[in-house]
Amino acid sequence: MDIFIAGFGTVGQGVAEVMKERAAWFERRFDECVRIVGALDSSSFEFSSNGLDPEILIRRKKMTGKVGTIELKDESCHILRQFDYDVLVEVTPMNISTGEPGYSNILTAMESGKDVITSNKGPLALKFSELIRIAKRNGVQLRFEATVGGATPVINLSRELLMGERISSIRGILNGTCNFILHRMREEGLPFAQALKEAQEIGIAERDPTYDIEGVDSACKAAILANAIFDLNKTYKDVKRVGISGITEDAIALAAEEKKVIRLIAEISSKRLEVSPRLVPVGHPLSIGGTLNIIQLSTDLAGEITVVGRGAGKFETASAILSDLVALLKDKSTR
Amino acid sequence: MDIFIAGFGTVGQGVAEVMKERAAWFERRFDECVRIVGALDSSSFEFSSNGLDPEILIRRKKMTGKVGTIELKDESCHILRQFDYDVLVEVTPMNISTGEPGYSNILTAMESGKDVITSNKGPLALKFSELIRIAKRNGVQLRFEATVGGATPVINLSRELLMGERISSIRGILNGTCNFILHRMREEGLPFAQALKEAQEIGIAERDPTYDIEGVDSACKAAILANAIFDLNKTYKDVKRVGISGITEDAIALAAEEKKVIRLIAEISSKRLEVSPRLVPVGHPLSIGGTLNIIQLSTDLAGEITVVGRGAGKFETASAILSDLVALLKDKSTR
Repeated sequence: MDIFIAGFGTVGQGVAEVMKERAAWFERRFDECVRIVGALDSSSFEFSSNGLDPEILIRRKKMTGKVGTIELKDESCHILRQFDYDVLVEVTPMNISTGEPGYSNILTAMESGKDVITSNKGPLALKFSELIRIAKRNGVQLRFEATVGGATPVINLSRELLMGERISSIRGILNGTCNFILHRMREEGLPFAQALKEAQEIGIAERDPTYDIEGVDSACKAAILANAIFDLNKTYKDVKRVGISGITEDAIALAAEEKKVIRLIAEISSKRLEVSPRLVPVGHPLSIGGTLNIIQLSTDLAGEITVVGRGAGKFETASAILSDLVALLKDKSTR
Repeated sequence: MDIFIAGFGTVGQGVAEVMKERAAWFERRFDECVRIVGALDSSSFEFSSNGLDPEILIRRKKMTGKVGTIELKDESCHILRQFDYDVLVEVTPMNISTGEPGYSNILTAMESGKDVITSNKGPLALKFSELIRIAKRNGVQLRFEATVGGATPVINLSRELLMGERISSIRGILNGTCNFILHRMREEGLPFAQALKEAQEIGIAERDPTYDIEGVDSACKAAILANAIFDLNKTYKDVKRVGISGITEDAIALAAEEKKVIRLIAEISSKRLEVSPRLVPVGHPLSIGGTLNIIQLSTDLAGEITVVGRGAGKFETASAILSDLVALLKDKSTR
């Protein structure tokens, strides 16, 4: 199975490391040589049908800032059309206005008959239904476990293991940065600005934290869940959204008096699609602290099933991509 | 897909109800007519190659105490050898000394080339390796999601969705009855005997609660996880086991002073196989109250993944059986 990695930031490098580390396991378990044959970033690319050494790619990226030795003169999707491979791992940075370059990369790969695994929320939060339609038309798979909940296997759990259940609603904390900030405000009595600054200093929040704190990131994930699990046709703009930048120390203290905490909760069902700060009783699963993600599925037979895991991180995201890759390998081996 | 249900107590009836309720969905989703063709209990059986109406089976069982119109004169495994079907759903009561009649039922079905789905811990906690070997030799599947964690999809999650992870250890609360008792002792300051009595009165504990409170039930589940996930060759007797009947009010009060609770924790790894009461800090996921089950998987890439769900119940167990059935249907449809 030949893999092309588009995007070679933290996640791309994590995937490359995991591919190398798991190579012998793939061989043993699926009797399949899983190789990286191509990689590109915003300014360069590299391809060899004999396979590329992940270590060399990572070292080059670290030393030169470029994953490849060949300059990328054109849009990346043209490169993806030019070469042969089996699976595109699309891990370029998210652009929530256009979905590019992820959208064109995914489209090009699928139209060339390649399966796609992505961690890129942009294309899926903007054009989910279209992408799924194109995947079906081309008889390929579009898998996206890594777009929601990081290492928390919520999408494949809901769609595959719990396929026989009727899921009526999902509630969860889908953004670790907001949760960290709300948790610190409560624990230390910090004002919002100071908790945010702390999150930025330890690398949990971006320099421009807008997407996280205004709930855009959570809304993208909520839209993806709405589409993937409730078969709706939503974009992140359809999500009713309130962020956490307006949460005051007073509000947190008032909640504390009632033995409650404030959490940024996403709620998804066929009737409701919303991200907003809510009061949660201390001790309730959704009162979880730190940067963890948590997702609760309400089902008709199993009742409530809750999954908790790390919401972000290099290997955590690579883990979700690996689980999609394993699903493709299993499919291939039973065909 | 023709199903034979062995055992027609609460779980068997739950499965029959779910089969009826999901019939149209099976048809739509897998283009497959999923029917119950046979059912047996300890004194009777019924078979029709044209399919049996689940409603009639349930009504007959409720009114006469027998699922079938034909007297069961022989051991149930002889019946299972006599008729044709595709999948045995083995849900007879657990016998932890002999594993019977589950063991012979499962063996007979597999040796006749049938796939088996079971919720019966006995055979798997006593003779796991042998049963898996026989399944392989006969080219059939033995699936057992329902044996551990009730509706919590821990086995298929670990073995299928997280197949690419290296799981180093599992910790969890696998018995809702013990958890309820420990929770009530703490909340209400009850002595053990009184909390147990309360659990019996509301139907959470059996009249003879030994299996639950002495940790045998948890040990069976721990052995199954050790075999299924760590590929060990253990029986429930290999599990180092301490129950909760020796937990005093004083011990609970002392723990409370340190902001801790006592929980019956199962720990499973290649080095450790143990069920024992442990101190857990309040707020830690394993400090969960009520009858819920919780399982934490420590993995190399994803870090810690936690799943919480209902540990028991008619539809909860049927849900786990349904997820195994769906896996068989998916397999069949890709073949």
